Amino acid sequence: MTEVIYPEERLRQKIHIRDPTLRNALSEFIGTALLLFIGIGIVMQFILSGEKLNTWIQINIGWGLAIAFCVYACSKTSGGHLNPAVSIALLTMGRLPVKDFIIYCFAQTFGAFIGTVGAYGIYYDQFIKYAGNHRTIIGPKATAICFCSFPALHVSNTTAFFDQVAGTALLMFFVCVIIDKRIAIPGWVHPFLFGFVVIMIGTSVGMNVGYPINPARDLGPRIFMLFIGYGSQAFTYHDYYFWIPIIAPLVGAVLAAWTYHLFIGCHIPDPKPVVLSMDEAKQPLRSA
Amino acid sequence: MTEVIYPEERLRQKIHIRDPTLRNALSEFIGTALLLFIGIGIVMQFILSGEKLNTWIQINIGWGLAIAFCVYACSKTSGGHLNPAVSIALLTMGRLPVKDFIIYCFAQTFGAFIGTVGAYGIYYDQFIKYAGNHRTIIGPKATAICFCSFPALHVSNTTAFFDQVAGTALLMFFVCVIIDKRIAIPGWVHPFLFGFVVIMIGTSVGMNVGYPINPARDLGPRIFMLFIGYGSQAFTYHDYYFWIPIIAPLVGAVLAAWTYHLFIGCHIPDPKPVVLSMDEAKQPLRSA
Amino acid sequence: MTEVIYPEERLRQKIHIRDPTLRNALSEFIGTALLLFIGIGIVMQFILSGEKLNTWIQINIGWGLAIAFCVYACSKTSGGHLNPAVSIALLTMGRLPVKDFIIYCFAQTFGAFIGTVGAYGIYYDQFIKYAGNHRTIIGPKATAICFCSFPALHVSNTTAFFDQVAGTALLMFFVCVIIDKRIAIPGWVHPFLFGFVVIMIGTSVGMNVGYPINPARDLGPRIFMLFIGYGSQAFTYHDYYFWIPIIAPLVGAVLAAWTYHLFIGCHIPDPKPVVLSMDEAKQPLRSA
Amino acid sequence: MTEVIYPEERLRQKIHIRDPTLRNALSEFIGTALLLFIGIGIVMQFILSGEKLNTWIQINIGWGLAIAFCVYACSKTSGGHLNPAVSIALLTMGRLPVKDFIIYCFAQTFGAFIGTVGAYGIYYDQFIKYAGNHRTIIGPKATAICFCSFPALHVSNTTAFFDQVAGTALLMFFVCVIIDKRIAIPGWVHPFLFGFVVIMIGTSVGMNVGYPINPARDLGPRIFMLFIGYGSQAFTYHDYYFWIPIIAPLVGAVLAAWTYHLFIGCHIPDPKPVVLSMDEAKQPLRSA
Repeated sequence: MTEVIYPEERLRQKIHIRDPTLRNALSEFIGTALLLFIGIGIVMQFILSGEKLNTWIQINIGWGLAIAFCVYACSKTSGGHLNPAVSIALLTMGRLPVKDFIIYCFAQTFGAFIGTVGAYGIYYDQFIKYAGNHRTIIGPKATAICFCSFPALHVSNTTAFFDQVAGTALLMFFVCVIIDKRIAIPGWVHPFLFGFVVIMIGTSVGMNVGYPINPARDLGPRIFMLFIGYGSQAFTYHDYYFWIPIIAPLVGAVLAAWTYHLFIGCHIPDPKPVVLSMDEAKQPLRSA
Repeated sequence: MTEVIYPEERLRQKIHIRDPTLRNALSEFIGTALLLFIGIGIVMQFILSGEKLNTWIQINIGWGLAIAFCVYACSKTSGGHLNPAVSIALLTMGRLPVKDFIIYCFAQTFGAFIGTVGAYGIYYDQFIKYAGNHRTIIGPKATAICFCSFPALHVSNTTAFFDQVAGTALLMFFVCVIIDKRIAIPGWVHPFLFGFVVIMIGTSVGMNVGYPINPARDLGPRIFMLFIGYGSQAFTYHDYYFWIPIIAPLVGAVLAAWTYHLFIGCHIPDPKPVVLSMDEAKQPLRSA
Repeated sequence: MTEVIYPEERLRQKIHIRDPTLRNALSEFIGTALLLFIGIGIVMQFILSGEKLNTWIQINIGWGLAIAFCVYACSKTSGGHLNPAVSIALLTMGRLPVKDFIIYCFAQTFGAFIGTVGAYGIYYDQFIKYAGNHRTIIGPKATAICFCSFPALHVSNTTAFFDQVAGTALLMFFVCVIIDKRIAIPGWVHPFLFGFVVIMIGTSVGMNVGYPINPARDLGPRIFMLFIGYGSQAFTYHDYYFWIPIIAPLVGAVLAAWTYHLFIGCHIPDPKPVVLSMDEAKQPLRSA
Repeated sequence: MTEVIYPEERLRQKIHIRDPTLRNALSEFIGTALLLFIGIGIVMQFILSGEKLNTWIQINIGWGLAIAFCVYACSKTSGGHLNPAVSIALLTMGRLPVKDFIIYCFAQTFGAFIGTVGAYGIYYDQFIKYAGNHRTIIGPKATAICFCSFPALHVSNTTAFFDQVAGTALLMFFVCVIIDKRIAIPGWVHPFLFGFVVIMIGTSVGMNVGYPINPARDLGPRIFMLFIGYGSQAFTYHDYYFWIPIIAPLVGAVLAAWTYHLFIGCHIPDPKPVVLSMDEAKQPLRSA
């Protein structure tokens, strides 16, 4: 039997990164950049077409699939968190050292920023056609919602906080269900199901602030807004709302992970403790 | 090989509940609370946004996915019935003792109540904006349909009864198909398919009263309505309609389960009887 | 280990039908009745709500899922054809004797009739509200399209014929792809994929006459129309169009099955002929 | 055990094509013809019904499923590229000789042409009703967009170029993720996931020119337009835009394939190189 070594295998032999932290950070960066490139594109296609080319169901489905496929891409390197809230929950579950958590957060947020740059570039012509030189948060030509969350005036920051706790809690609760080895869903299905969890959340907890449920997804594009003329309003709007989609998801994800194990996961009948090797433990969510 | 015992495994060793009835009741409670939190959120996002942020397709898909993931969560403890109609059908099929059936029903209905409280909390600001102080069942600011089913005036209670028998019958018929070991669908796929059955039902048997097809899902939120100012109309409306989505689903589910076995399941060619251990038999729907 | 024999297994021991033709006919009848009950419900929910509770995407998804689950139900007995066009194609492929084909066709068409009765019953109140005593095929209160296909006036019968050949050809072509053992898709996935094929067809070949692509699905409800006051117009309309969705699907399905094997299936590299036992051969589509 | 040889197996013994290039070309031709027959049908059902029978979500889902099933059909012969951009990326990855690449491109483009003929035939009556004798690219009765991409006037060709690079890059990036043996998704799932990638792309990168992301899909129907009266405008419109959806996808696909391996694929921890036999290597994407 003649064997063939494919070009990408030869490339691998030359460039394979052996340091787990570096390759994981790279994966989180690429994965979150892709996620935001796709995701910001989805929202822009909705807003800039006057809600014609996309409707809310496409936002739900598009974001869900973007999560699914970006997690697939990173599932065997960094685990495909793409979200500091997922990372902090896994930190409390012993899957991620504090140092790596901090690196993941930076990689994710920087990735989100870069992905937004890409989507803005692709849709720059449409942006100009829709909004001209206006860069405003509310009003008829408002485009701020293309980038990140801005609550309506009748939604209080307290409500927004609990909304983001709840939305991210749903995400992390079902992530814990899906990856629980005792629930026994095959690993290759996990990212696809994560995507459908996001679709579900979008149909349910999307009305108050539009389900960011991810600090990097919200902060990265918000920083980008400073560069293209929205000014400090991106941060000061609605009584400094900006910190809520950063902090609340972290709270929600940790609460949900432990709620799942406290009320359900720990009680699944199965006498043997699940034990993993240190190697597996170092690769959070690698099972996917 | 260095082994790692994860924190949730250590927690498990401390708090694992050994009594099946208790852990199953807890699971049914949590599962149904989550289901209603998500599901009431879906309907509120539809009604309170003036049918803008959700349309009927999102109600179909959102509820279907909510069923799928909440069943996944409970699939290895209580089996994830989340519905007294499913429980009574499994009772007649020898999977659930009468005592457990009653406990399941209470846990499900109380869970439905608590889940509704949560959704109402998250969307309280939106509720006030939409309806002000009105708490009415029909009319321009009507919000009762956010919580449970209220038939239109031209639908008779007789029609509503048969509608709920039929809708729940479809659900239970296909649940029996999916879990039939001779149909041989892998267990990890079951909850996902249950969800798609619900999506299908919503597109077909949703027009008369909106497919509650679950006594707990309908009664839990209806009781909550008494606490927030709708008054006894929640129960007296439409000539005491409220009992129909409680009783009719129980009838439909039992009829359907036995219809399936009588006309199809019993005739699948396979000489060996399916035999399960007492342990498996005690854990209804555990195969999922 | 204590063993448990479930009640449905005891029922099975008493009533199990040993004659394959009888049990298959029963399955085709039940399966097609369910399919039409759900499917006619979907269309009625669209028409009778003034296109509000369902839109076309729900018709696509609902019908697709109805196919998927009704085929699952019958997959281990009759194979779940639910469609004379599928049956005739399998006849030409040696999977169904001529006698069984005729029995299948009757069971399917009678099932379609009975399913329509059920859907009409559930939505009778809505029907009266929408159309009063009108039973017309065209015009503002027209409801004929709830039951079966009626082409618009600008679509010729020739076009309708080729449309139905093409639509059914797509269905059967991809059914052959999905069940081809050399494509190697696991059997439990087949019915789910059949459903998605139907969703796809509905988005593509649905404009001329609404993709009946199934003689039983079209004829059964059309006969029912005679009983509820539409008169002979149900058959004479559009220059006796009614025979087209009966004959064209049969032509399309046979053409497509052999086109697949002629141009693709026969050329998949694999030296061994696929051989099945007589027993397997007698149970068409049993692999599902 | 009596064995049965099915009729299609006997046909196979007579007509099985042993030359890989010929059978692969035939598969690519049939697969792309089917894809365009379905896909052009989808767009026509949208345009010619006045955006009533289809909306954008059906275009997304319909095209995605069309990709999925057409790839399934060809997955064991040619691999089911159906797109010169996918073929060129696999060429650079050593899976497709240059000669075969050229043959694939011709087969795909000719298939796209023939599929378009079919869809035009099926919807000819509808075409005449909608547009009469007008064959125009812009304006109230414009139908050119039924066939291939024509950018709006405010989108520059530079933007269109990068849009098509980006859209096709997303496609090929995730194709590489899905087929990566180290990501370990079972082969029979691949085509289904490809379809969902296309759905995602349609919700995100669809606004500028409508995501052709496939030179054959765009050029085949464009050539057909010359035969039915659109004139040379089909090619000269928008400053000779036509070459962009031919060239840009080729660039995007190659870039994306290597980007994936450079930044993620090569760093998946796994010491053994993936080695395939020459026979497997000759059948690109055969794993599907």
